[in-house]
Amino acid sequence: MILKKINMENDIKRIPREDYDSLAAEIREFLIDKISRTGGHLASNLGVVELTMAMHIVFDLPKDKIVWDVGHQSYTHKLLTGRRDDFETLRCYGGMSGFPKRRESECDSFDTGHSSTSISAGLGIVRGNEILNKDGMVISVIGDGALTGGMAYEALNNAAQLKRNFIIILNDNNMSISENVGGISRYLDKLRVDKSYNDFKDEIENTLNRVPMVGESLVRQLKKTKSSLKQLLIPGMFFEDMGITYLGPVDGHNVNQLISIMKEAKKLNQPVLIHVLTKKGKGYLPAERHPDVFHGVGPFDKETGKLKKKKEKPDYTDVFSLALVKEAEKNKKIVAITAAMPDGTGLKRFKESFPERFFDVGIAEGHAVTFAAGLASTGLKPFVAIYSSFLQRGFDQIIHDVCIQNLPVIFAVDRAGLVGSDGETHHGVFDISYMNLIPNLNIMAPKNKYELAASIQFASEFNAPLAIRYPRGEAFDGLKEYRLPIEFGKCEVIYKERGIAILAVGSMVETAIEVREILKKKGLYVSLVNARFIKPFDEAAIMELSKDHDYLITMEENVLNGGFGQSVLGYAASVGLDMEVINIALPNGYIEHGNVDTLKKAGNIDAASIVKKIEIKIGIENGNDII
Amino acid sequence: MILKKINMENDIKRIPREDYDSLAAEIREFLIDKISRTGGHLASNLGVVELTMAMHIVFDLPKDKIVWDVGHQSYTHKLLTGRRDDFETLRCYGGMSGFPKRRESECDSFDTGHSSTSISAGLGIVRGNEILNKDGMVISVIGDGALTGGMAYEALNNAAQLKRNFIIILNDNNMSISENVGGISRYLDKLRVDKSYNDFKDEIENTLNRVPMVGESLVRQLKKTKSSLKQLLIPGMFFEDMGITYLGPVDGHNVNQLISIMKEAKKLNQPVLIHVLTKKGKGYLPAERHPDVFHGVGPFDKETGKLKKKKEKPDYTDVFSLALVKEAEKNKKIVAITAAMPDGTGLKRFKESFPERFFDVGIAEGHAVTFAAGLASTGLKPFVAIYSSFLQRGFDQIIHDVCIQNLPVIFAVDRAGLVGSDGETHHGVFDISYMNLIPNLNIMAPKNKYELAASIQFASEFNAPLAIRYPRGEAFDGLKEYRLPIEFGKCEVIYKERGIAILAVGSMVETAIEVREILKKKGLYVSLVNARFIKPFDEAAIMELSKDHDYLITMEENVLNGGFGQSVLGYAASVGLDMEVINIALPNGYIEHGNVDTLKKAGNIDAASIVKKIEIKIGIENGNDII
Repeated sequence: MILKKINMENDIKRIPREDYDSLAAEIREFLIDKISRTGGHLASNLGVVELTMAMHIVFDLPKDKIVWDVGHQSYTHKLLTGRRDDFETLRCYGGMSGFPKRRESECDSFDTGHSSTSISAGLGIVRGNEILNKDGMVISVIGDGALTGGMAYEALNNAAQLKRNFIIILNDNNMSISENVGGISRYLDKLRVDKSYNDFKDEIENTLNRVPMVGESLVRQLKKTKSSLKQLLIPGMFFEDMGITYLGPVDGHNVNQLISIMKEAKKLNQPVLIHVLTKKGKGYLPAERHPDVFHGVGPFDKETGKLKKKKEKPDYTDVFSLALVKEAEKNKKIVAITAAMPDGTGLKRFKESFPERFFDVGIAEGHAVTFAAGLASTGLKPFVAIYSSFLQRGFDQIIHDVCIQNLPVIFAVDRAGLVGSDGETHHGVFDISYMNLIPNLNIMAPKNKYELAASIQFASEFNAPLAIRYPRGEAFDGLKEYRLPIEFGKCEVIYKERGIAILAVGSMVETAIEVREILKKKGLYVSLVNARFIKPFDEAAIMELSKDHDYLITMEENVLNGGFGQSVLGYAASVGLDMEVINIALPNGYIEHGNVDTLKKAGNIDAASIVKKIEIKIGIENGNDII
Repeated sequence: MILKKINMENDIKRIPREDYDSLAAEIREFLIDKISRTGGHLASNLGVVELTMAMHIVFDLPKDKIVWDVGHQSYTHKLLTGRRDDFETLRCYGGMSGFPKRRESECDSFDTGHSSTSISAGLGIVRGNEILNKDGMVISVIGDGALTGGMAYEALNNAAQLKRNFIIILNDNNMSISENVGGISRYLDKLRVDKSYNDFKDEIENTLNRVPMVGESLVRQLKKTKSSLKQLLIPGMFFEDMGITYLGPVDGHNVNQLISIMKEAKKLNQPVLIHVLTKKGKGYLPAERHPDVFHGVGPFDKETGKLKKKKEKPDYTDVFSLALVKEAEKNKKIVAITAAMPDGTGLKRFKESFPERFFDVGIAEGHAVTFAAGLASTGLKPFVAIYSSFLQRGFDQIIHDVCIQNLPVIFAVDRAGLVGSDGETHHGVFDISYMNLIPNLNIMAPKNKYELAASIQFASEFNAPLAIRYPRGEAFDGLKEYRLPIEFGKCEVIYKERGIAILAVGSMVETAIEVREILKKKGLYVSLVNARFIKPFDEAAIMELSKDHDYLITMEENVLNGGFGQSVLGYAASVGLDMEVINIALPNGYIEHGNVDTLKKAGNIDAASIVKKIEIKIGIENGNDII
């Protein structure tokens, strides 16, 4: 077992060259074995085994800095830097993260999670080293999918001014999570597939050598311009045009070739891009065949590749997916937009039903939002489906391009709330706050799957900007008998008692039922209201509640600051309601990775913690009769 | 006077070709005359007179849609679409906006203000027309500066998939507001300046025609590949590589040339980019010489080009500019970053003093923030100076790249608050809210110029993410004797009374003094506290105030939702303070353009409105003695 010899960074340098292939095979076996039990990102990690090995052989960590774009492909990197045993706790609460984390290892030079940040961060490190006179190379590893994000281009544009080495490795597997799209993708295809493009280069050079010497001026001109011609004809002009030297393409599964091109790149005193061709899922047939399924995967049988846990109930994404197609059959003005995630957002079904009304714009959330605004300005009804934490990338565009003009763009905000094992970079716990502050933007959160479907129906006819937020995972199907028709800005009273009322948002309605049951057992009967609309919320209903309630408890799966609770509190204070408002929300902090139930406990938004808070606040523990 | 004949869109089509030059001259005279009196964007508008004329001659408005990027260059467009008389009220409250506004004219197809949105919006309109079977061409006009913004590239990447006409006009004046930077700019320079680049193309073609026919296969290969070669050799490969046809470059001050190239572009069933070379300030010598000064300008003497109103007192930008250079002399770890606005942000002085520690990254706020995070990770202290409303573009990057890792990046948030005549797209009235929700981000707002300087000094030694917000315009120099040393999270008590306390943020301290004076005249003495820290705010001091105050009035130049006031209210409620909290803030809406004082009145945050609100809330009007 060669892998056993690698216990910390740079140990790989002592492995003899002839063992590289065996080591790669061992790493793959290790990853498949571990991930088949813990779940995690598989396909992307299998694709970069040799690439990571080569980097660790050529560069000196931690002095040299590797910046992983997105970062879910850093497992081999973790394995080669002394974290082999930590794979037991991969993505578990308190365990090893599935992304690079500076707090985990000095060899993790920059935390990532969202797409297209690595060139910016890497360039910052290069400039920092330059100013501080520090040694060390910087290598940013970016996928071809992440290259569709505008930030990567902003960084390339800026990097072009550099007169110092900076290595950008383009890990080109021709995919983002799904198939890659757009002009850049097509361009890379050309470099990647069309062998004749390279042959053609030689052909032209030969040709020019044979050009008859007719007329002195032409000859001089040709000689003079031959080097420019060469520049023009090499592949990678797109990058060269910006001022980035292009090397490649190179086989990303050949360690020796990778080592030699990296050594070449090290010599240049300028930014250089190495174009590396890799295969997602490489070496594990089920993942090679279905790289999308094995992108982020739960535990599976490693022999058959079958997922161990079958989905029994639909998740919210499924519900959205079906509901949107149903509405789109009736309303021909509905169009749908995804930023490179047709599967994750459930829009694949829409794509199949209405290909001409479906748009995958690449990993480009900012553009997705403004593009939707353009569509809406023509009279269409665009649904933009983006995960809560990724929609942060379109924040300005929502304010500036959608809401100033009050255009009817519908935001399907998936993964709103705690997402679990992807951790702090992926939790959707800010969206209520960042949307709450945007004028003209209306916000809904359905309590269960029926209400999500009804919300999509409502949105289809709604003529202003509207966001519908719903969480990751299994769709709640309780409270099915509560189907008050949706009316703009109106809540839904579920249980009406006196004294204490809970006003819960979306996923917290389910938690509120638990809270209510616990309190009921203690002899305390509380009202339960499904807020349904976060903005505008139902002021009249709250005023009404204040007549026979002393306490109003707001609940939301979002940070406290700027959230729903503080809005309600602000309203109550401004009109002087005679009812105390208590806010239940996540603390104002980042929440790590782990099981969602564990994280809810850690964030004090599970039923038990909420009951405790209510008891302390209202003094029930002390036997005070407060009603 | 030819201009008089143009009273609505398409009137220009009846002007004979031989009058084009005279018309252009008249338009320039009109613009110079009007803007010399009202102020406004001059240089950019003088640069696009012929370009706008040609578009209005070739295209049919409002059926065809012109989307202006940023939009401050739309004056000629407004002039040619029936808004000549409205120039009297340009940028005045209730008057004509300096940007395209759909509510103003059917010929304004999309509202803009921020950079790099036009290709996204235009593409949305093209796709909308396609789906709705609507006629009409779409033309997005984008500057070379705006092309450094990643969103433009995301849109180009997406546009490449289009099989329909979409015209992108690249208005290349080799500048953003200041000189343009980066790889793209260098590339455009090459297309723009190097004439031989074009000649070379013909040369090579000729050469190929003379290639001796040696060996059948080579000949076939050459014939076959000649068209590819042509593709390879034409300028604009950067765009062609993405799948966008490139036409140009063309002289942007020759109406007839512009017309003919636009007619050419109309024929193509694909996205096409027309590269137009223009000169900022064209036709007005002072603006040609100083396009940065005449970018956005106040009233000036049109004969001499001298500004009418000289700055008497330094503005906050000047104070920041000086203070940062002073700190950077002591602290060698300070570096500074601007997104294409070295002048606007005051970093020009830093650039001149420490060129190697200064970075202009282009119009690329997202990249700027993550680049700063990379710099900070090496041990440097980056100051990122960006206007409040533009920093919205870096929202995710602040959350994800700076604050998760708790990196000591300092945000100098200029133009925080109402900015005046640029209006709704430019007001910095959301930053308290969008920064308040970000964990680990600390936020300050100095009350006057001395405190801004002290804040910069404080920031220089501060080891976590910190934002310092300060408004546009003249720096307040009152309260100069109040210089309590800055202590993290601590406020500054200015006047201590009993009963009513004002807790004011930044610019509102000045307003609070006025409010206090008015109330004093009515016999009411109120305490005044300078919050100084918005996050974390001084909970202990608020608790202390609650001992001898019944009312705490928070004041901020920011929208109510998610702002400082709601945080304070949340705190007061959570600990059950016996003090009523009243929030003074801007309403949750967009605020139009106009004089800042007028806008403050309209938003009810001027002293008189605040006094009125306090009186109503506290019941003084009714003669109630509340203290």
